[in-house]
Amino acid sequence: MTLAVRYTAARTLDTATLKSPPPGPGEVELAPAYVGVCGTDLHIFHGDMDARVATPAVLGHEMSGRVVRVGPDVEGWRPGDAVTVMPLRWDATCPACLDGHRHLCHHLDFVGIDSPGAMRQRWTVDASVLVRLPDSLPLDRAALVEPTAVAVHDVGRAAVRDGERVVVIGGGPVGMLIAVVARDAGADVRVVEPGARRRTLAGELGFTAWDPGADDVPGLVRGWTGGAGADIAFEVSGAAAGVDTAVDVLAVRGRLCLVAIHAHRREVDLHRFFWRELTLVGARLYDRSDFERAVRLVAEGVVPAARLITRVVPLVEAPAAFEALEAGGDVKILLDCTGTEEAVA
Amino acid sequence: MTLAVRYTAARTLDTATLKSPPPGPGEVELAPAYVGVCGTDLHIFHGDMDARVATPAVLGHEMSGRVVRVGPDVEGWRPGDAVTVMPLRWDATCPACLDGHRHLCHHLDFVGIDSPGAMRQRWTVDASVLVRLPDSLPLDRAALVEPTAVAVHDVGRAAVRDGERVVVIGGGPVGMLIAVVARDAGADVRVVEPGARRRTLAGELGFTAWDPGADDVPGLVRGWTGGAGADIAFEVSGAAAGVDTAVDVLAVRGRLCLVAIHAHRREVDLHRFFWRELTLVGARLYDRSDFERAVRLVAEGVVPAARLITRVVPLVEAPAAFEALEAGGDVKILLDCTGTEEAVA
Repeated sequence: MTLAVRYTAARTLDTATLKSPPPGPGEVELAPAYVGVCGTDLHIFHGDMDARVATPAVLGHEMSGRVVRVGPDVEGWRPGDAVTVMPLRWDATCPACLDGHRHLCHHLDFVGIDSPGAMRQRWTVDASVLVRLPDSLPLDRAALVEPTAVAVHDVGRAAVRDGERVVVIGGGPVGMLIAVVARDAGADVRVVEPGARRRTLAGELGFTAWDPGADDVPGLVRGWTGGAGADIAFEVSGAAAGVDTAVDVLAVRGRLCLVAIHAHRREVDLHRFFWRELTLVGARLYDRSDFERAVRLVAEGVVPAARLITRVVPLVEAPAAFEALEAGGDVKILLDCTGTEEAVA
Repeated sequence: MTLAVRYTAARTLDTATLKSPPPGPGEVELAPAYVGVCGTDLHIFHGDMDARVATPAVLGHEMSGRVVRVGPDVEGWRPGDAVTVMPLRWDATCPACLDGHRHLCHHLDFVGIDSPGAMRQRWTVDASVLVRLPDSLPLDRAALVEPTAVAVHDVGRAAVRDGERVVVIGGGPVGMLIAVVARDAGADVRVVEPGARRRTLAGELGFTAWDPGADDVPGLVRGWTGGAGADIAFEVSGAAAGVDTAVDVLAVRGRLCLVAIHAHRREVDLHRFFWRELTLVGARLYDRSDFERAVRLVAEGVVPAARLITRVVPLVEAPAAFEALEAGGDVKILLDCTGTEEAVA
């Protein structure tokens, strides 16, 4: 038996006791240690994704944990191994998969959204999704590997090079991780973020942060770049104004990496794309190489995990975690799945 | 003295006799032979660019001709040489120039719009803009080099590769030239064009052409590509619906090359850019290597110049040429500057 937190309807989570049968062929049973609450989980909690999410749904796709039991026909994994999960499963037969872009599979199963996730004490997954963690990496920090993999993928899609000038628009967890990963690639990075607390954190992490509500961001970028404009802008805000700022700040031949989900169509200054020969690049999820690089960046301390994890809440108090994230002010909130083990003893 | 056609006010062209002094240091006097009328010239004729164009303005930037007189300090050119002009001058000091993107100079002088153009019998230009034409190339066909250079640049920006599937949205002169140049690069090309006569011409040039008003273009692309979508879409229509079609037809990781001028902001499905990791690439003008490749493509007959030139009108009848282009049905209309030489004798 395992305790699990489930989304059952808009703004409603329950705690259920589920069976945890022995893992089948190719499967591994995990004991999740920490599970991050993602902005997407919050969207689901708000009921905005009910068309996609089958209830009751166990959420959670940013996790760390250990192998507990190994099913038949699984090689390379033993009980006690520290792992995270790359929460993607693809059909391997659609045009995107056949073209080598499996993370963009036409029928992608995003584990934790389209199929059951990690907010539980025991979790059986296909061994193919496991990613090994070094024993030296504390498991709470390891819960940041998944969002770091997003940032690694985004920085790769934008092809950030040493010495380039980068503007990150939106200083939430993914924006902050993009800033960190881009800096690690040699870029000079500025962050644009309306929230004062997030700007303060950006400053503590060594980034100059501008307030789009008070600062003349395009003017500041011109001053910073000698009139040229920035080489790269990451749109991580999801706001219409964020798109405009990204377009405005870019130099001739600049690249706009679109990370945020824009559920609505946006008015875009396409003439500027023509006139300055700008490029817009969509970036979604990650592949295994991004994930493995993210493990290294978290393990080596490039990612300031301790600064980004602002709250850790026991699994059974998940509703409080969702409400804290909703209230703002936090960066990354983790659910601790370890402290409640006795409940299933 | 030289006869010249001048734009003086909205919908008004006059014919004037201008002085043609000996070329100064670094300059060359040309005798234009043929000058193409471009869509941009038509915009100017409509008065839409009065804020940019200083009247009276001699238009014309798609030209062929011969060197007549060579000024001091000019090397490599002799009277009688067949030439075209790459109508760009840059300041060489702005950030774009210093970064190697001179065709995107922050203070670009587009000759024929920002400074006097080729619709005249004698034209003195800086020798730096000259591009040599092979003697074997008839000068009427050579007037297509400039729009062909646009197409070469666009196909290069989109990085069209052998075997890729390409949709060209908009079958005007530039769209048709993009189709031709992309096919020469090995692509399988479809054209989307609402005009029946242009669709017929596309068919005669060997392209399947679809009518966006009657055909289910995204469905046809899915059928053509086994459900994958197209690798590349060129947006050459300038219409809001053209942008939507381009986004709709693209495969995962597809590239949208934005060629048309969209004077208004457009609503764009940015979520599709995220979801399919699409790329949008702005493409404007050309550089010298594009121009030189365009000369070869026209000279070798890859560009079906005789099919694309649908009308040749004497220089002094320029108003009739503009009105014919406005009426539609033509592809490329040339002004013939040779037949009126006696007028300046």
